[in-house]
Amino acid sequence: MSANNQQHNMEHQRHSLAHLLGAAVMELYPDAKLTLGPAVDDGFYYDIKFTGSVSESELASIENKMRELLPTWTTVTHKEVSKEEALGHFKGNEFKEELINEIADRNEVITLYTMGNFTDLCRGGHIDDLSVIDPASFKLDRIAGAYWRGKETNPMLTRIYGLAFESKEALAHYEWQQEEGRKRDHRKLGRELKLFTLSDLVGSGLPLFQPNGMIVRKAIEDYLWTLHSKKGYSRVWTPHVAKEALYETSGHAGHYMEDMFSVFGGTSKEKFYVKPMNCPHHMQIFADNQFSYRDMPVRYFEPATVYRDEKTGQLSGLTRVRSITQDDGHLFCRPSQIGEEITTIVGIIKEFYTTMGMIDGYWVRLSLRGDDHSKYLGSDEVWHTAEKALTDICIAQNLPYTPAKDEAAFYGPKLDFMFKDAIGREWQLATIQCDFNLPERFDLSYVNEQSEKERPVVIHRAISGSLERFMGVMIEHFAGAFPVWLAPMQVSILPVSEKFADYGEKVRQALEASDIRVTLSLGDSLGKRIRTAKTEKIPYQIVIGEKEQTSNTLTVEGRNDLKLENISVDDFIARITDEIKNRTLN
Amino acid sequence: MSANNQQHNMEHQRHSLAHLLGAAVMELYPDAKLTLGPAVDDGFYYDIKFTGSVSESELASIENKMRELLPTWTTVTHKEVSKEEALGHFKGNEFKEELINEIADRNEVITLYTMGNFTDLCRGGHIDDLSVIDPASFKLDRIAGAYWRGKETNPMLTRIYGLAFESKEALAHYEWQQEEGRKRDHRKLGRELKLFTLSDLVGSGLPLFQPNGMIVRKAIEDYLWTLHSKKGYSRVWTPHVAKEALYETSGHAGHYMEDMFSVFGGTSKEKFYVKPMNCPHHMQIFADNQFSYRDMPVRYFEPATVYRDEKTGQLSGLTRVRSITQDDGHLFCRPSQIGEEITTIVGIIKEFYTTMGMIDGYWVRLSLRGDDHSKYLGSDEVWHTAEKALTDICIAQNLPYTPAKDEAAFYGPKLDFMFKDAIGREWQLATIQCDFNLPERFDLSYVNEQSEKERPVVIHRAISGSLERFMGVMIEHFAGAFPVWLAPMQVSILPVSEKFADYGEKVRQALEASDIRVTLSLGDSLGKRIRTAKTEKIPYQIVIGEKEQTSNTLTVEGRNDLKLENISVDDFIARITDEIKNRTLN
Repeated sequence: MSANNQQHNMEHQRHSLAHLLGAAVMELYPDAKLTLGPAVDDGFYYDIKFTGSVSESELASIENKMRELLPTWTTVTHKEVSKEEALGHFKGNEFKEELINEIADRNEVITLYTMGNFTDLCRGGHIDDLSVIDPASFKLDRIAGAYWRGKETNPMLTRIYGLAFESKEALAHYEWQQEEGRKRDHRKLGRELKLFTLSDLVGSGLPLFQPNGMIVRKAIEDYLWTLHSKKGYSRVWTPHVAKEALYETSGHAGHYMEDMFSVFGGTSKEKFYVKPMNCPHHMQIFADNQFSYRDMPVRYFEPATVYRDEKTGQLSGLTRVRSITQDDGHLFCRPSQIGEEITTIVGIIKEFYTTMGMIDGYWVRLSLRGDDHSKYLGSDEVWHTAEKALTDICIAQNLPYTPAKDEAAFYGPKLDFMFKDAIGREWQLATIQCDFNLPERFDLSYVNEQSEKERPVVIHRAISGSLERFMGVMIEHFAGAFPVWLAPMQVSILPVSEKFADYGEKVRQALEASDIRVTLSLGDSLGKRIRTAKTEKIPYQIVIGEKEQTSNTLTVEGRNDLKLENISVDDFIARITDEIKNRTLN
Repeated sequence: MSANNQQHNMEHQRHSLAHLLGAAVMELYPDAKLTLGPAVDDGFYYDIKFTGSVSESELASIENKMRELLPTWTTVTHKEVSKEEALGHFKGNEFKEELINEIADRNEVITLYTMGNFTDLCRGGHIDDLSVIDPASFKLDRIAGAYWRGKETNPMLTRIYGLAFESKEALAHYEWQQEEGRKRDHRKLGRELKLFTLSDLVGSGLPLFQPNGMIVRKAIEDYLWTLHSKKGYSRVWTPHVAKEALYETSGHAGHYMEDMFSVFGGTSKEKFYVKPMNCPHHMQIFADNQFSYRDMPVRYFEPATVYRDEKTGQLSGLTRVRSITQDDGHLFCRPSQIGEEITTIVGIIKEFYTTMGMIDGYWVRLSLRGDDHSKYLGSDEVWHTAEKALTDICIAQNLPYTPAKDEAAFYGPKLDFMFKDAIGREWQLATIQCDFNLPERFDLSYVNEQSEKERPVVIHRAISGSLERFMGVMIEHFAGAFPVWLAPMQVSILPVSEKFADYGEKVRQALEASDIRVTLSLGDSLGKRIRTAKTEKIPYQIVIGEKEQTSNTLTVEGRNDLKLENISVDDFIARITDEIKNRTLN
């Protein structure tokens, strides 16, 4: 079975388990009213109106009931019914009645699905035989409140969540991953390691970076620029606001307006928007030049903050934010140059994620246009050319890719890169997007060998995606223990007592002179100071006592039980400088 | 006479010359109606309603008439008159009538000033004897249109501008400066050297930086960070929008609101402001820590773009913009640390402007509070402490300073640094501002030796002021011929013919490998390519021919008639690398 089919099968299995949950609840709580019960990414849930309250302590008995029913659910049957028949079946359940009436109003077929003794209103999408499911591969997870159909003015329902995977082992792995993820939660570590701040006065989804967080962020940003500057990219800078006319020309106005922040000038009385992306600005930088074919490709790089509005309730830490600093870049090339340019970008992506320790198990989604062509800007011919170019590169570069129909941006097809973090969770991060539409809309051109105007192709690319989200992912990936080149503090010097403070200070100065971020830790007991250094996840601790001072050497402790003894200050500086320069993982 | 008195005297002289202009016009155009005629920074003007049109060709005869009247204007007399008497004097001049009625409505004294045979409505502020003025020290300059009292719905008047200085030489110097300034106009050079772009679609006052401009801008920004990173500053990052609550807490809401851009979220329906300054954000970063006296001072640095709204008509190039990237920094210290910290900042300012070749003739304005204390936030005690601290530093540091009453910011006293560019024009650039108010408003504290909470002092500082404006000043200061470390392109390699293209390419690669920005120029005739390199103001041209290729050396031409012959590639790389590293002026 292919990965895609397997995915499909799990979705059906989870959907069937939602029915099983509904059946178990109705056996135990006959007065409860079932509403909607879909499959989700890690299992399933059912929203239920109970007559009384239900606590998580009752989940065990519901789960037992599910396991009891499971072996009897060997067949799945369904039938089309009339509106009246359906309403008769769910008499007294105003939620199902509402759904039935809506389906009937849309003139759609009403179907009832039966497994075991349980019949539910359903569109289908089930496995044929539930009895093949390993009873240990699923479990009920937790209870939450949820408004009927997500609307705050509707009745509050009880949502019971279940987890379900292809095997007992996969479930256990997922639970371990979740537990490990909670320990590494970047919001918790962000506070403990003083990486960033969320302020009620500034607003939700608008994180402020503390000095420690800024060291990490700047190191990542500088590294990204290093990778690009070697490949012919130039830095540009564009303002954070622009007139509506820019987005009307780009075509974003019609598609993105709802997520945009509108701006009004108190003095000028003029209207602007905070930029939701940098592309329209970069088109203006290109347009202000008269380029010839000899100048192509033209490549711009700008790590720039764009702003997109989201509902306050959906914002979280660094991963769901309103201020999004894209490591953005746009390149303008001749159609014949697409292949070479995207190959270069793929190279940058591979190098970057190798450095970050995330290259294992990555895959690429090739997002193509769907059947409803009215959703997209640009001609069929343009779409065909762009989609073929990306597909050819996937094949030529031997990328582990999966074509995904209907997933393209409105302006063009794209490659999205998925990377796994240290605990195996998958993140969509880098992207390369072809765009034949913006050059048209901004009437961009360069002069070819025949002194004629030719239209360039635009390629959008982001390697980390957004610095905020990427930082959030990195904090959890490294569990806050950043490799030396990223660590806010790289070395802690711990004299065993004040007696060795002078030698400690001498060592500190030597390290600082070599641009190493170092702190001399004095005051508290040695034990407490060592604990503090470990809590702060400082990669290297140098303990200094009589022996070290006398021999003018160091004893260094590092991660993974590393211990360096009798190492000279110069040798240690050479070692750590080398690690920083090579961005070594440790 | 002190510089201050001299300044005062020139203002009076210019004001008196405005009267002389009015008198000359009335002699030549008896039907004209005078309106308002003040002194300005470089002379004076008079707004006049002529019956017909007046062209610049008529300025000579008006100027002659002024010189004719001048020797007779040996006395200045004035008298207080009743409203009726004043109205009688200016019968038929609806502009003067409007002014007289307004003065009377405010119950203020109406005064008429008489010099020679000419009497004008005036508040005074003249020199005693105009006949001492050198007739060659002033001239009429140009004609412009101006609405009565600057309002578009009012009648259009003719504004005649005059230039006036303390001597003929000073006038000539000013005119040379103006002419030289026009040649160096950063808007013109900005286009020619492809430094920045103004886009109608993006909006006025929102410049976009082209790759060339960004090299200059980033080099300046990186240099500023280098200067600060050595002095204990940490980078921080804050978003460009914040809720109104932040500015209510900071107290900016009441004072700055008109210049601010308000923001509205399309999805969240929440209201924000684009930040007009970074201080309130930095207060939030400090507030999210529990600092002890051992942590003080805490120093934040953030080159961040703030946005302030100005009327479209007042925007120009890089010097009058809406997007202002401040090389901003805030430090939080104990009152006892103010002296040392400001001394450090003064050191940074001196080093930076020495590097830029602007240290000669700088002076400092010590801006103090005015008499109307209601205009300022904070207690009298707090103001006294801050003003004394700044004054003490001016004296101790032996700064060329001038106290300026009534020039303080609403939140505290400050030091503003004035620097002269290459043609002697003065620019207000660096600033150091004491602030005892924001720590109060944000209730900031650190814990002292007695474990008690203590209030820190905030010091705002900017070295370049704003990167946009500073870039504008630098473009004109260097007339586009940036020193090597700032030059977008540092070296142009010009083979005399295609025959030497290979050797040229070898040299190009060697320079590029040493991180030198270098271009190999081929195609056009050598003469044309050399002209292009000069137009692009590339510091070094390397001409390569038979001799150079045979001897494996270079012939290098640079600015100020520099010519290096028989220099090896390595020696040239060493030379230019040294200049870049030391940020040499050349």
